[in-house]
Amino acid sequence: MPPTRNRRIVLASRPFGQPRDENFRLEENDITEPAEGEALLRTIYLSLDPYQRGRMSAGPSYAPPVEAGQEMEGGTVSEVIRSRAAELQAGDLVAGYTGWQEYSVAGATALRKIDPALAPISTALGVLGMPGLTAYTGLVNIGQPKPGETVVVSAAAGAVGSAVGQIARIMGCRAVGIAGGKAKCGYVVNELGFSACVDHRADSFEADLKAACPRGIDIYFENVGGRVLEAVVPLMNPFGRVPVCGLIAHYNATGLPPGPDHVPLLMRAILVNRLTFRGFIVFDFREQQPEFERKMTQWLREGSVKYREDIVDRLENAVSALKRLFTGQNFGKLLVRVGPEPRPATSPHRTS
Amino acid sequence: MPPTRNRRIVLASRPFGQPRDENFRLEENDITEPAEGEALLRTIYLSLDPYQRGRMSAGPSYAPPVEAGQEMEGGTVSEVIRSRAAELQAGDLVAGYTGWQEYSVAGATALRKIDPALAPISTALGVLGMPGLTAYTGLVNIGQPKPGETVVVSAAAGAVGSAVGQIARIMGCRAVGIAGGKAKCGYVVNELGFSACVDHRADSFEADLKAACPRGIDIYFENVGGRVLEAVVPLMNPFGRVPVCGLIAHYNATGLPPGPDHVPLLMRAILVNRLTFRGFIVFDFREQQPEFERKMTQWLREGSVKYREDIVDRLENAVSALKRLFTGQNFGKLLVRVGPEPRPATSPHRTS
Repeated sequence: MPPTRNRRIVLASRPFGQPRDENFRLEENDITEPAEGEALLRTIYLSLDPYQRGRMSAGPSYAPPVEAGQEMEGGTVSEVIRSRAAELQAGDLVAGYTGWQEYSVAGATALRKIDPALAPISTALGVLGMPGLTAYTGLVNIGQPKPGETVVVSAAAGAVGSAVGQIARIMGCRAVGIAGGKAKCGYVVNELGFSACVDHRADSFEADLKAACPRGIDIYFENVGGRVLEAVVPLMNPFGRVPVCGLIAHYNATGLPPGPDHVPLLMRAILVNRLTFRGFIVFDFREQQPEFERKMTQWLREGSVKYREDIVDRLENAVSALKRLFTGQNFGKLLVRVGPEPRPATSPHRTS
Repeated sequence: MPPTRNRRIVLASRPFGQPRDENFRLEENDITEPAEGEALLRTIYLSLDPYQRGRMSAGPSYAPPVEAGQEMEGGTVSEVIRSRAAELQAGDLVAGYTGWQEYSVAGATALRKIDPALAPISTALGVLGMPGLTAYTGLVNIGQPKPGETVVVSAAAGAVGSAVGQIARIMGCRAVGIAGGKAKCGYVVNELGFSACVDHRADSFEADLKAACPRGIDIYFENVGGRVLEAVVPLMNPFGRVPVCGLIAHYNATGLPPGPDHVPLLMRAILVNRLTFRGFIVFDFREQQPEFERKMTQWLREGSVKYREDIVDRLENAVSALKRLFTGQNFGKLLVRVGPEPRPATSPHRTS
């Protein structure tokens, strides 16, 4: 019997600071039928990402916020159940932004077909998806890396940061990570091949970072803000570039940090060292998606880029998983397995 | 009889905060003879510029500081008295960085010949010199103005700011100035043709700026920092550009301003609005000097760019004049007339 009921997580109220359980609500509703050009989808993987914190707040941002009572936004990989779009058929696998729910109806033009023969389908939400494209486009377009330069990236064990450092290494740069804790730092150096990784939780963080960057920093890929940014700025070389991708240290802040005001220090560094700070989001470079997919697929196949996933089962665990993201307790790209992968089509070793 | 003694102003001690008289000393020394490839010069105009404050401090910057006992750095227009360089002869007029003194010896390669038929020779230190080139290159390369965009510039009545707004106007932008006091704001609008000018000393400054920029700000040419920057940032449009040229509000600061720390606000604006902040100094774009001189000479001739000079007589008044620069009491490009212009060669209406 075809499914008739959907389960979804809606925003119950706007969080103040760190999101709490009571800010969310698990609801049931009827599955609706796709209209012409749409498809009914079954969610397999839901992506949890730092940007989702911004959607929970009312302030102006680059996208309108989720309203109370609306389902939470999120990238997904889904299976097509029924299609009324010519380009999709039942059994197809698609990536889209269909939210925190088990079933959804989406227009075909808002979906991207995934070829499960290329890589595990979950990577469409990670190294081959939005985080990977973010890493690639921010590093290449804004960072403009040149061989021999030092590239520092914060949240280096995360979905974006791990890709940034590995792409920098492939481009001939010295990649230095910043991550929280010894386990992540060890992974970044030993598994991902960064030249060094510094633990931002250590008392000696600032000195450790300086020691890890003996020729200064040419590119700082900013995912974090706060104390990490403050340690990086004095080490920036003349004409250094700072792609500003995220500021996870600030997302749950309920006010500004105490003084003094460090803006004059930051501005002076920008002026004297002729630094470029430039904010971006992945959609600013969406035309580079084919180029990125071609290169990243090749790098994955060669083994020159690796990735790690932190997968949580069941939709009802999404909120507790998201909370781990903001305390840095996840280790790898954070995903919720909302439903099972369709067996025969997703093995990368299938013979068909 | 040829002159034998030179008078010069040396840095006596490093200022703490606003420069004071006791940080400088007027000295006499013997005039030295030029070596092969050099010329002996008589200073006519000395340029006073905000960057000179940076040279008085010991901290790292883009140029080494002036040491105590050394003569102060400064751009000059001079007359060649004796030359041992093939490309220069007595009577030639040259621009260079020969410092706060009445006579100097300089290598011909460090000097730039001035044609007094093109414009008054003092403009080689202002609208046709370093400040003009700074305005042009920062606006064009980093600001990248497009017709119809709103360009805001601080210190708008100053040597750099006045050129920025007029070039922006010529390029089809809406130019909005920020200046200190009604007289300067009136000049910026009525004489220079900016669309609006806002007084940063007014209590209603933030609201006035917002009202003057009904379509937001696409380019902010930063000369000032502090309260002015803070008022500008919330008005920046998506993909806005901020050439960071100067921070005169901070140059005499003896510590950081009180909290809270506003860095998270600035970084969030950069991220969410995808802003570009980029520091520069004029030497980063020196290859554009011929293109700039060609255009600016034409704009001056047409009357589409105007300029104003604030000229103080005699070397011994340089220190008190410099102090006026940091309190915004100058009105126009600040120059010291160290010695007279050579009569026959400098009239733009001469018939020869």
